[in-house]
Amino acid sequence: MSKAPTPKKVIITGASGAIGQNLVPIMLSNGYEVQAVTRDLENARNLKWFKDVNFVQMDINQTSDGLDVNSETGIIHLAWQGLPNYKSEFHIGSNLPSNYNFLKALIERGARHVLVSGTCAEYGMQCGKIKSSAPTHPNTQYAYAKDSLHKQLRFLQQQHDFILKWARIFYIYDQVGRRTNSIISQLNKAIDSKEEDFNMSGGEQLRDYLTVEEVAQQLFYLFEDYHDGAFNICSGEPISIRRLVENHIKKRKSNIRINLGFYPYPDYEPMAFWGERDVSKSKGQQSSS
Amino acid sequence: MSKAPTPKKVIITGASGAIGQNLVPIMLSNGYEVQAVTRDLENARNLKWFKDVNFVQMDINQTSDGLDVNSETGIIHLAWQGLPNYKSEFHIGSNLPSNYNFLKALIERGARHVLVSGTCAEYGMQCGKIKSSAPTHPNTQYAYAKDSLHKQLRFLQQQHDFILKWARIFYIYDQVGRRTNSIISQLNKAIDSKEEDFNMSGGEQLRDYLTVEEVAQQLFYLFEDYHDGAFNICSGEPISIRRLVENHIKKRKSNIRINLGFYPYPDYEPMAFWGERDVSKSKGQQSSS
Repeated sequence: MSKAPTPKKVIITGASGAIGQNLVPIMLSNGYEVQAVTRDLENARNLKWFKDVNFVQMDINQTSDGLDVNSETGIIHLAWQGLPNYKSEFHIGSNLPSNYNFLKALIERGARHVLVSGTCAEYGMQCGKIKSSAPTHPNTQYAYAKDSLHKQLRFLQQQHDFILKWARIFYIYDQVGRRTNSIISQLNKAIDSKEEDFNMSGGEQLRDYLTVEEVAQQLFYLFEDYHDGAFNICSGEPISIRRLVENHIKKRKSNIRINLGFYPYPDYEPMAFWGERDVSKSKGQQSSS
Repeated sequence: MSKAPTPKKVIITGASGAIGQNLVPIMLSNGYEVQAVTRDLENARNLKWFKDVNFVQMDINQTSDGLDVNSETGIIHLAWQGLPNYKSEFHIGSNLPSNYNFLKALIERGARHVLVSGTCAEYGMQCGKIKSSAPTHPNTQYAYAKDSLHKQLRFLQQQHDFILKWARIFYIYDQVGRRTNSIISQLNKAIDSKEEDFNMSGGEQLRDYLTVEEVAQQLFYLFEDYHDGAFNICSGEPISIRRLVENHIKKRKSNIRINLGFYPYPDYEPMAFWGERDVSKSKGQQSSS
């Protein structure tokens, strides 16, 4: 697989999602011409950088027409519908074929540099520090569909010459409570509405959290500096969810009480796992691979 | 998962294919009412049992309408297009979603007893005797699509209560040269057209061959006597392809010379693998599982 020249044009799907909102400004400030794909153009009008990009309203489940793509156009595919219902049949029955067809159409039209967001859930019930070279064992429909999209695109590389960077994103700690489903967003809501208690699980489970800004930064480095492969987008540091919540309550100077053990632990997640970090903390670093 | 009562109505797709042609008469003689699905009704008219079944002309890539299905109707799904081009994108891009949607529609309409033909190719580059409990490592688009259809249906069992018997069929040794792509069919053609040489690979590779009649018989036992699971449909006995060819030349009393080493060994198949047999040789046996 030859290395394609890094394009200065990029198509970003899910551009008005939590990660996309943070990634688009980084791409713009680094000289990229951005085509931003969204299903909801009205909602996108509120974004600060709305006028700085070429916004394309499109349901990628239906079509990829209307996108200007050639071999110089990078693709950063963040869109994925139906979350957080990880066990919905929709991921396999609908999202998987439509996302594959969408990306295949762009690749057939010449795209040679494709970055797609995967998920740490692809690893399944594995405990401890996980390398991106580990075999995957997806155990929810969501995780299976993402892992399968990855593998289907690897087979597609036998027919088409393109670079595929598969970004397995770990847990997003969203400090300002935007549109993510993270526990911190839920905690912010509880604090803001002056609730006395915050109900949560036992909280002992160890996870790998990073901010949505860090995710966007790592995706940018991954897009610019790295080769074909699968990558962990993670902090590399385990933290208990209890500690994460306690830290955030302190930061918010809140008196909310945490009610540990209110919810059971999810049956589809291991008690302790975190990523081995692949993407360096500064520009211009290529990890050995 | 409860055991559904064995239905006496059955839908068979791929009914006019090599396996289907042999399976339908077995089902009929055991008292089944058969809906036989085919894409090519004209071709099906030549089948001896054409008038004994309810033939439904249908492209399962398009629809499942027109099939009479309820919880008492068994499904035996043998159809699969695009063979023998194992490395075609078609298997993943087209066959996988359309076969999944076809089966999902039948299951949503009440089908509770589903048998689907898989392939030994799902095991990938594994050497030696292979148990049906072995992890799969599909390495062609065909094998990946079959394995993925299996896994997608396993996830679907979380939403719907049905029994799934996944039949990984090994190599078909077709004695009378019908519409299979087996090496024996090719050999028969060469003998019939009085060719002097039969070009083949080195022939040392060990495989697991059974006749298409044996495949049909095992599928019938599997359908009637076994529980939910994945099963090898195989002989359980390794044989070199060279020996297989030599035996058949003797049986045909032919003088054709075999030209060993003319073709390279396929790059996607292990040198030696055969199945551990799951389905017994007589009726009414349930293997311990």
